[in-house]
Amino acid sequence: MTSFIHDDFMLQSPLAKTLYHEHARHMPIIDFHCHLNPKDIYLNRTFANLYELWLEGDHYKWRLMRAKGYPESIISGGVDPKAGFMAWATTVESLIGNPLYHWTHLELKRYFGIDTLLSPSTAKAIYDQVNALLPSMPVRTLIDMSHVETICTTDDPTDSLEWHERLQSDPTFQPRVVPAFRPDKAINIDSPAFLAWIGKLAHVANRPITSLKDLKDTMINRIDVFHDHGCRLSDHALDEVFFQPGSDQDAAMVFLDVLNGKVPSSHDIRLFKTNMLVFLGKAYYQKGWVQQYHIGALRNVSSRMLDLMGPDTGFDAIMDGKIATPLARLLDTLDETNECPKTIIYTLNPADFELAMTLTQSFPSDGVSGKIQFGAAWWFLDNIDGMTRQIKTLANNGSLSSFVGMLTDSRSFVSYPRHEYFRRLLSNILADEVNKGYFPNDPAILSKIIKDISYHNAKSYFNFV
Amino acid sequence: MTSFIHDDFMLQSPLAKTLYHEHARHMPIIDFHCHLNPKDIYLNRTFANLYELWLEGDHYKWRLMRAKGYPESIISGGVDPKAGFMAWATTVESLIGNPLYHWTHLELKRYFGIDTLLSPSTAKAIYDQVNALLPSMPVRTLIDMSHVETICTTDDPTDSLEWHERLQSDPTFQPRVVPAFRPDKAINIDSPAFLAWIGKLAHVANRPITSLKDLKDTMINRIDVFHDHGCRLSDHALDEVFFQPGSDQDAAMVFLDVLNGKVPSSHDIRLFKTNMLVFLGKAYYQKGWVQQYHIGALRNVSSRMLDLMGPDTGFDAIMDGKIATPLARLLDTLDETNECPKTIIYTLNPADFELAMTLTQSFPSDGVSGKIQFGAAWWFLDNIDGMTRQIKTLANNGSLSSFVGMLTDSRSFVSYPRHEYFRRLLSNILADEVNKGYFPNDPAILSKIIKDISYHNAKSYFNFV
Amino acid sequence: MTSFIHDDFMLQSPLAKTLYHEHARHMPIIDFHCHLNPKDIYLNRTFANLYELWLEGDHYKWRLMRAKGYPESIISGGVDPKAGFMAWATTVESLIGNPLYHWTHLELKRYFGIDTLLSPSTAKAIYDQVNALLPSMPVRTLIDMSHVETICTTDDPTDSLEWHERLQSDPTFQPRVVPAFRPDKAINIDSPAFLAWIGKLAHVANRPITSLKDLKDTMINRIDVFHDHGCRLSDHALDEVFFQPGSDQDAAMVFLDVLNGKVPSSHDIRLFKTNMLVFLGKAYYQKGWVQQYHIGALRNVSSRMLDLMGPDTGFDAIMDGKIATPLARLLDTLDETNECPKTIIYTLNPADFELAMTLTQSFPSDGVSGKIQFGAAWWFLDNIDGMTRQIKTLANNGSLSSFVGMLTDSRSFVSYPRHEYFRRLLSNILADEVNKGYFPNDPAILSKIIKDISYHNAKSYFNFV
Repeated sequence: MTSFIHDDFMLQSPLAKTLYHEHARHMPIIDFHCHLNPKDIYLNRTFANLYELWLEGDHYKWRLMRAKGYPESIISGGVDPKAGFMAWATTVESLIGNPLYHWTHLELKRYFGIDTLLSPSTAKAIYDQVNALLPSMPVRTLIDMSHVETICTTDDPTDSLEWHERLQSDPTFQPRVVPAFRPDKAINIDSPAFLAWIGKLAHVANRPITSLKDLKDTMINRIDVFHDHGCRLSDHALDEVFFQPGSDQDAAMVFLDVLNGKVPSSHDIRLFKTNMLVFLGKAYYQKGWVQQYHIGALRNVSSRMLDLMGPDTGFDAIMDGKIATPLARLLDTLDETNECPKTIIYTLNPADFELAMTLTQSFPSDGVSGKIQFGAAWWFLDNIDGMTRQIKTLANNGSLSSFVGMLTDSRSFVSYPRHEYFRRLLSNILADEVNKGYFPNDPAILSKIIKDISYHNAKSYFNFV
Repeated sequence: MTSFIHDDFMLQSPLAKTLYHEHARHMPIIDFHCHLNPKDIYLNRTFANLYELWLEGDHYKWRLMRAKGYPESIISGGVDPKAGFMAWATTVESLIGNPLYHWTHLELKRYFGIDTLLSPSTAKAIYDQVNALLPSMPVRTLIDMSHVETICTTDDPTDSLEWHERLQSDPTFQPRVVPAFRPDKAINIDSPAFLAWIGKLAHVANRPITSLKDLKDTMINRIDVFHDHGCRLSDHALDEVFFQPGSDQDAAMVFLDVLNGKVPSSHDIRLFKTNMLVFLGKAYYQKGWVQQYHIGALRNVSSRMLDLMGPDTGFDAIMDGKIATPLARLLDTLDETNECPKTIIYTLNPADFELAMTLTQSFPSDGVSGKIQFGAAWWFLDNIDGMTRQIKTLANNGSLSSFVGMLTDSRSFVSYPRHEYFRRLLSNILADEVNKGYFPNDPAILSKIIKDISYHNAKSYFNFV
Repeated sequence: MTSFIHDDFMLQSPLAKTLYHEHARHMPIIDFHCHLNPKDIYLNRTFANLYELWLEGDHYKWRLMRAKGYPESIISGGVDPKAGFMAWATTVESLIGNPLYHWTHLELKRYFGIDTLLSPSTAKAIYDQVNALLPSMPVRTLIDMSHVETICTTDDPTDSLEWHERLQSDPTFQPRVVPAFRPDKAINIDSPAFLAWIGKLAHVANRPITSLKDLKDTMINRIDVFHDHGCRLSDHALDEVFFQPGSDQDAAMVFLDVLNGKVPSSHDIRLFKTNMLVFLGKAYYQKGWVQQYHIGALRNVSSRMLDLMGPDTGFDAIMDGKIATPLARLLDTLDETNECPKTIIYTLNPADFELAMTLTQSFPSDGVSGKIQFGAAWWFLDNIDGMTRQIKTLANNGSLSSFVGMLTDSRSFVSYPRHEYFRRLLSNILADEVNKGYFPNDPAILSKIIKDISYHNAKSYFNFV
């Protein structure tokens, strides 16, 4: 009997199989955006059981279990890990059409050699089998099994980067682990936590911050520190996109007012944020960094659950609203003086895909290939339809072969099969073009395209040392 | 020669055929949202001819005939039923890719045993053949032929429910016919007909309404009456979604002002409507009802035709605009105190599909399976592409197997083949997942999924007595 | 070895082949919207080399080359035509999934008989081969090879139409070449060039323009002149759609103020534009013209490149924002008095497709078939996915068989294979409906549908003399 995750899983044609097995499969992974904890890597954490590995922090799974009506205590509370795992097994059994069905079985197979389909009747055996293996499969082992060359974590500017430092001076671990710079908290002047964060930043950088100039100087200092730790990209959550022009003096005044306890107006908030985004974009340009804009999340919509569980626990959705004009003006402001860094634009609302794709093509630079990228399908779109739509949108209006490709965006050490998933799908899509006669069957060109998207493009785009 | 509507119509693979014929086909229909007239059912209306049955009130067909340039008198005017039918026959002949082509021939086959394709050359014979059958095919016969278990009509709170009462005490008719509560007129304070409607409500409920408290008490009273008549769900047309918070006192003041002849401001209109939506949502929750939000219609866009024909005559379109934030806040306000009822969200603009789907998953409750539903493709989307997109969106981000499935939204007694149409398509989609290796070919699980979506989920979700 | 562009290129089934080869292929082309230069046609321009033919003015190609990082001087600057062509050859080689890959090879084959795939290794030979042919292939020859019956250029109201006049009195050239009326500059009162343009219009029409009445009278005069030169359609760029009602007096005042040097408010700009759009729409109706609305472009987003290269050089994107209500009101205002002309609505943002399609169906007229058309996939959507989506949207909610079909929107004399590309795709889509059993395999009806969409519908819709 064939396994569900067999060698040709997802591959719908002989050419797709060739493209995947001969060209994509063995390329290393550059995971340029994830949320892994460098401390876990350094300390080589082990997991007590499959609940802890899979369900302790995965809000993708939580949402699906909640939709089935399971109590939160079982889902995320961890009051009974085995019961939580049983609930997941019951949920997953009928998840037809959902990527979690595939991720679940890919992870069981790739890390634990398990071919059995997860269901209530197989759950206990699988739980025991994996739990028996976990003590000998700490984090570094899981990463080693994944053929990862580079991991970019996501780090606050106030992070000491202590664990990155230790990792980088540890000769026993090969993959490159570098920080990525996520300065949302420096920008979100309307957050109740803003002043406390500024205080923390001043403390970490060991310099007072009493003006916008201080803040900007300190940010440059942190960028330098991150750069020295191998960081080559930043990340911004632009839940909504806006562009409110104003002078540096205007922005400085807003900052000062907030330092003095004033509540900023909506206009001033936008002016300050715009000013900071432009400032940081130019700073990244100076460093040769890549900036990422993650656009269109509507976060923490349930007040009840925000109170109970805090932010980022799976109560998020997709945002709508105008982005074309403000995003164009933001990029234009950076580009006007030729200080626009390489940028990856991810939009969470697929209604914005074509719009975003056409914007990426409107700010090229001489000598930079694929400068503004239309990023991989993200979060709620990280499924076969969403990824297909992203890839096709890119191909229709641009050069798919210049795409920097997939990332995990993951908090889990067993999420690397998402790269396999992406590469199998990409093989299908490319093969389909050829099979329909829309592109010639030229093995050399096809091999180059799929290898570039899987690996080489990211490697040359990010300039990791 | 094979019929156009043959046994395997639409079914594209052996597995699709198995899923449909062995599992979906024989499940009863729960038509939880339609616009059938209970009086017609009670009185067992007969139709004089196929024009009357098909064309007297079907603005789907009208729009297509108008696009061909036929005069309104022939289309909807009924001045010459046979000529109207001929116009439809001419229109339908070349309707490639349109669901009306399929509905037309499904209805001819299922109710009248006619296999001939409708065209100008066959129209006369078909017209005569159906007209000869119609006297012996009154409404109850048509329903009996359709294997319907439950019909939810759409009723104004001022409706006396007289015909529902009579139907429910008629032992000769088996299907359950219950009202659904559609209180748009209690909310639309900006409508010129608002005050007259309030007067009518006071009259029907036999109590004065001179304050918002009166209005709310009376609405609770009507909800009780509807509940006693078997009603378990409500329906709201949210052409645009907004959320304008305000106190009950603020809303009461707006209502009082309008009672006193003042024209409310746009802010006050939104505040009042928000207040009523929250009030009613909590009332439904108390009763264990399901509420439906129908989002995104732009109605009666042609002033000329509105003057000539009145509202809801086929001059409608799809609306755009921001819905994520206000819809999130509306649901959050209900959820905050744990008083959010089960809710089905239908969006008419497919650009909002992913957004709406992700919102439905953000307000779960312990112990309730599939609590907030992303509703079936509606109106302009009720075609193969629209239904496929809705089903795939649901599967990508949620649990397709928890879906409450199809409804007719119909004013016609021969629209039940839309359930067949949906089930055939669903069989294809599920089979396609299996055929591509994206889901295992487990007959028991597939059978359960398709039966649940066709029937069991709706049955358990709505709690009909 | 089979050619890439072989006889059955794109055609995925036997029925698709039949539909294309037997029915679509030989229909003449009515290119009702393009940007060809009538002077080039009259003077029978020849091209010095393939760079000049292909790359001198094609911002589709420029964008793709810019994304690869080539310097602007090579791309559009023409400093080294051969190097520019080599850059294009290198870019195109890996353009999997992009329509430019197909257009490029269709054009090489249809006009120059070249079957070789373009790549860096074949580029030199192809360049030389085409360059050798070009002297004997002037513009009229290229058009004659393309089986074009009618060409509608795009012309400013101030255009003298001199070249159209000459062409029309030249008996040696068969295809009908007529102007189309593009009065954006008469409407864009907020443009810095507005007053200069008004002056130019007054000069061309030889009458003073000192009031809105003068402007409108002059526009009517130009419409008459265009009509006399065979013009039967107009075109408006509605980058954003709005509807700001106001009286003619209000609009006249805004115009007078601007004549007197005042800067109009945003409200006044919209009021004036709305007034002009309604005025012109009614004027077109009187003439029996078709008006085109091109909705949703975001133009010239790069200030740096706008300074360097001027407008319309490939730095454009797709716009978002609400269009349903204002577009409905604009059409309704024209329709209210039964003065709405035939209209083709093109939306550049595919998120608006269903919305636009449903609006087109809401303003029919007795006796006019397919009155408001949902126009072909445009610009960034002019690819297999975009065209498929447009065709399917049309079929789902309307009558695909009434569609006026494809146009080139092109500045190039070798772009006519885009009609072939469209027809091949259309053949596939229609065949697919039949192959799936969604439409009967009736050769007469299918033949009529595909011929109508390819040619007859446009012919009867536009009423060219």
